[in-house]
Amino acid sequence: MAHVSIIGTGTMGQAIAGLAGKGGHAVQLLGRNDQDKVAGDIVVLAVPYPEVQQVLAERGDQLAGKTVVDITNPLNFETFDSLVVPADSSAAAGIAAALPDSKVLKAFNTNFAATLSSGKVGDGATTVLIAGDDADAKAELAGVITGGGLRAVDAGALSRARELEAIGFVQLTLAVGEKVDWTGGFTLN
Amino acid sequence: MAHVSIIGTGTMGQAIAGLAGKGGHAVQLLGRNDQDKVAGDIVVLAVPYPEVQQVLAERGDQLAGKTVVDITNPLNFETFDSLVVPADSSAAAGIAAALPDSKVLKAFNTNFAATLSSGKVGDGATTVLIAGDDADAKAELAGVITGGGLRAVDAGALSRARELEAIGFVQLTLAVGEKVDWTGGFTLN
Repeated sequence: MAHVSIIGTGTMGQAIAGLAGKGGHAVQLLGRNDQDKVAGDIVVLAVPYPEVQQVLAERGDQLAGKTVVDITNPLNFETFDSLVVPADSSAAAGIAAALPDSKVLKAFNTNFAATLSSGKVGDGATTVLIAGDDADAKAELAGVITGGGLRAVDAGALSRARELEAIGFVQLTLAVGEKVDWTGGFTLN
Repeated sequence: MAHVSIIGTGTMGQAIAGLAGKGGHAVQLLGRNDQDKVAGDIVVLAVPYPEVQQVLAERGDQLAGKTVVDITNPLNFETFDSLVVPADSSAAAGIAAALPDSKVLKAFNTNFAATLSSGKVGDGATTVLIAGDDADAKAELAGVITGGGLRAVDAGALSRARELEAIGFVQLTLAVGEKVDWTGGFTLN
């Protein structure tokens, strides 16, 4: 049984908490400004990308030795026309550099919150893509995801987070442009 | 009625020819080394990325004024771990730079050939994502795609080709890693 801590109580944080709870895992849902110590072995950073830096500054020491899951889509939310991370890198790579003693994974950034709760992307099934360099950490997170009734697919090394962020970027622009619904998006068949 | 020329007779070229034919469009399917002049108003470059340069060198002058569709995934096919185009650019941007008098679109690179013929991505429907800067050219290509029974979605400006190539990249690595079938992949619900 995994112990999952989620930092951030927005729609994504709530949906991931619900997913972990479905599988019977212990879940700690922390507000960004909560003072409680992170208890879980898997810690999901469910805050918007601009707030990640503050979370790392405040809690970085608590994250050592843990699996840390980056779910962000680091878009320029003014233009919706670019990412704010370097073209040859990713938000996840930046977080991994800031947390050298954690096992950083990228996951959930290609899933809209509603699809995590419903298990459906339109009329298809929800698949969560995971990238990371630690096979055990990926397998443990995949177990939490499948335990909650969703499909998990290993998308490769953490370097693949760059491409997962590109997928999340396109999906967000399509939703904002009303070409897909927030209950839909990309899925993998 | 559009006139569609396809350069390249591999599985993708054949599938796109079939798609255009289904909608009743005139189709010219040219081998890479054919001497025939390009007749279509929409020209699909259905050759692997490493061969595009040669096609442009041989036929660039014939492509002026036409809509040119780049379908490539510019992977390093030795490592399957990176793209061979600059991180802040795309194959499509390079082709557009080489063909200043053509309307260059990115399309079909997120679709496996089998899914264009069957109309199915696993048990979901096939969606073709199109990026480009010329709205009329995109609409005309979308008409060919929907005329062949598939869904077409405008993914934005040609700069979005960078992200479409990231999607194609991930999808190819998943297929080679046997995590998706060549009759499946990403779809948009």
